[in-house]
Amino acid sequence: MFGLGKKKEEKKEEDLLNAEAAEVERAAEQASENAKDKKEGAKADGQISADEMAEFEEFKRQKKILEIRRLLKTIDHTLLKQTAKREDIKKLCAEAVEYGFYSVCVQPVYVSACNEFLKNAPHIKIACVVGFPMGENKTETKVFETKRAVADGADEIDMVICLSAVKNGNYSYVKREIKQVVRAAKGNPVKVILETSLLSREEMLKAALCARDAGAAFVKTSTGYFGEGAKAEDVRLLKETVKDKCCVKASGGIRTADQFLAMIDAGADRIGTSAGKDIADTLRTNM
Amino acid sequence: MFGLGKKKEEKKEEDLLNAEAAEVERAAEQASENAKDKKEGAKADGQISADEMAEFEEFKRQKKILEIRRLLKTIDHTLLKQTAKREDIKKLCAEAVEYGFYSVCVQPVYVSACNEFLKNAPHIKIACVVGFPMGENKTETKVFETKRAVADGADEIDMVICLSAVKNGNYSYVKREIKQVVRAAKGNPVKVILETSLLSREEMLKAALCARDAGAAFVKTSTGYFGEGAKAEDVRLLKETVKDKCCVKASGGIRTADQFLAMIDAGADRIGTSAGKDIADTLRTNM
Repeated sequence: MFGLGKKKEEKKEEDLLNAEAAEVERAAEQASENAKDKKEGAKADGQISADEMAEFEEFKRQKKILEIRRLLKTIDHTLLKQTAKREDIKKLCAEAVEYGFYSVCVQPVYVSACNEFLKNAPHIKIACVVGFPMGENKTETKVFETKRAVADGADEIDMVICLSAVKNGNYSYVKREIKQVVRAAKGNPVKVILETSLLSREEMLKAALCARDAGAAFVKTSTGYFGEGAKAEDVRLLKETVKDKCCVKASGGIRTADQFLAMIDAGADRIGTSAGKDIADTLRTNM
Repeated sequence: MFGLGKKKEEKKEEDLLNAEAAEVERAAEQASENAKDKKEGAKADGQISADEMAEFEEFKRQKKILEIRRLLKTIDHTLLKQTAKREDIKKLCAEAVEYGFYSVCVQPVYVSACNEFLKNAPHIKIACVVGFPMGENKTETKVFETKRAVADGADEIDMVICLSAVKNGNYSYVKREIKQVVRAAKGNPVKVILETSLLSREEMLKAALCARDAGAAFVKTSTGYFGEGAKAEDVRLLKETVKDKCCVKASGGIRTADQFLAMIDAGADRIGTSAGKDIADTLRTNM
C-alpha cells in the first residue's frame, strides 16, 4: 500500500520535472528564435534591446538551474559510517530533500529510520547496502539481508559481489549469487558493487557481464572502503561493456564537483558520494 | 556426529599438551634437584660436570619449546581479505596445523572449505566472522549468518557489534543483539568485536559489559579494518572490566612478536593476527 502511494508520488515528481524541462525547452526555442531575430536585427542596428537581453539572461539562468537539478538527481546521498547516529541519518534525509538528490544510501540498520524521515518526501529513494563492504558473506545471507531491507522499505539494493569467487575464477557463482539477490529484491533495482580497484581489468569486465546477465540494474564501481575508488576510465569501460542493458554507478572517493563531472562525462548514470552538498554548492557557484 | 569426533580429538590434544607439561615439570624438578646437588658439589669442587650441564641445557630447551607452544596456542590464525583464494585458505589451514595455532579465522564463504582442509586436524578450531567488518547489519541477519556458519562447521563466532547503536546510546539493543547471536551459536563461543578505536573509553567499557552480560565468551578489540587496532592499554582495561566472566581477544595490527607479547602481557587470552608465522619464527629465534 505504502509502496503504491510512493510510486504515485514519484510519478508526480517525475511529471513535474518533465513539465519544467518542457517549459525550459520551449523558452529555449523562443530565446533561440529571438536570438536569431536579434542577430538579424543586430545586423541591422548593431544591438539588442535591454528587455530582450534581460529575457535572454533569465533564460540562461533557468537553463542552468535545470541542468544542475538534473545533475543532482544522479546522486545517491551516502552515509555508511558505522559511527553514524540516528540524527546524522535524519540530516542526510533532510539534505536529500533540500538538494533534490536521487536517494539516500544507508546501512541496513537505518532503512526503517529513513522510511520514517522521508515519509513526506516519498520521491527520495532509499538505497540499502547488502553484504557490505567485503561481500564475503554466504549467498543465503545476502538474500536474507536483501529481503529484510525491502521489507523495511528499501527501494534499491547496493550489493557487494563475492570478490573471492572472482579471484577463484568462479564466475558462475558470482552470477548465480547476483541472480538470487535480484530475485529477493522483488523488482527493486539491484546495483552490483564490483570493487574495481581490487580487480584486474579482465576480472572487472567479466564480473560486470555476470551482473548484466543476472538482471542487475546497475554495475557500481566501489564501496569506498578499499583501494582508490571510482576511476573515470573504469566507468567508461563498464559503460561500453554493459551497454544499454545496465546503468553504471560511480562511487568511492568522489568528493569534488570536478570528480563528479568527470564521472558523468565518462558515462556514469548514478553517482554515490557523501559530498553531495559540497558538490551541489560548487556547481551552483561555478556553472 | 562430526562435532563429537572433533571434541574427542580435541580432548586428546589437550591431554597430550598436559602430559608434555607434566613431563617438563618433572624434568624441571629433577634439574632443580641436580642443580642443588651441583651447587653443593660446586662448593666442594668448584665446578659442575659436563653431563649435568648438558642435562640442564636440555631441560631449559624443552621448557622454552613448551612455552612457545603455549603462546602459539593463543593465536587465531587469520585471513579475512576478500581477495583470498581457496588455495590461500588451504595454506592458512596447513600453517595452523604446522605451527599449532588455536584456530583459523575466516570469512563465512570459507568455513566449509576449512572444515574440509582440517578434517585430519580437528583440534584446530574454525572461527567465522559475522556482520564483518562494520556490524551495521540487522540483528536478524547476524543471527542468520551465525546459524549458517555453525551449520557449515564453525566452532567459534567473531561478531561485530552494532557500532551505531553504541553511538546512539542504545546499549539495550547492543546487549539484546549479542544475546541473540550467542543463542544462535548453540554453545559455540562468541567473541564480540567492539572496534575499540572508534569508541570512547566509556563506550568501550559499557559495550564490554553488554557482551559480558549477554553470555559472550570473549570481548575482542578490533576488526583490523578501522582505526589503529588493538592497544595494550585497552586490553588491560577490558580485562579489568569483564574479569573472569569473559576472556579478552586482542586483534588488529598485531604484526610483530613484540606486539604479540605486549598483548599477552596486558592479559589477552587470545590473539588474532595474520602474522602468526612470523611471530612464531621470531619467538623461536629470540626466546
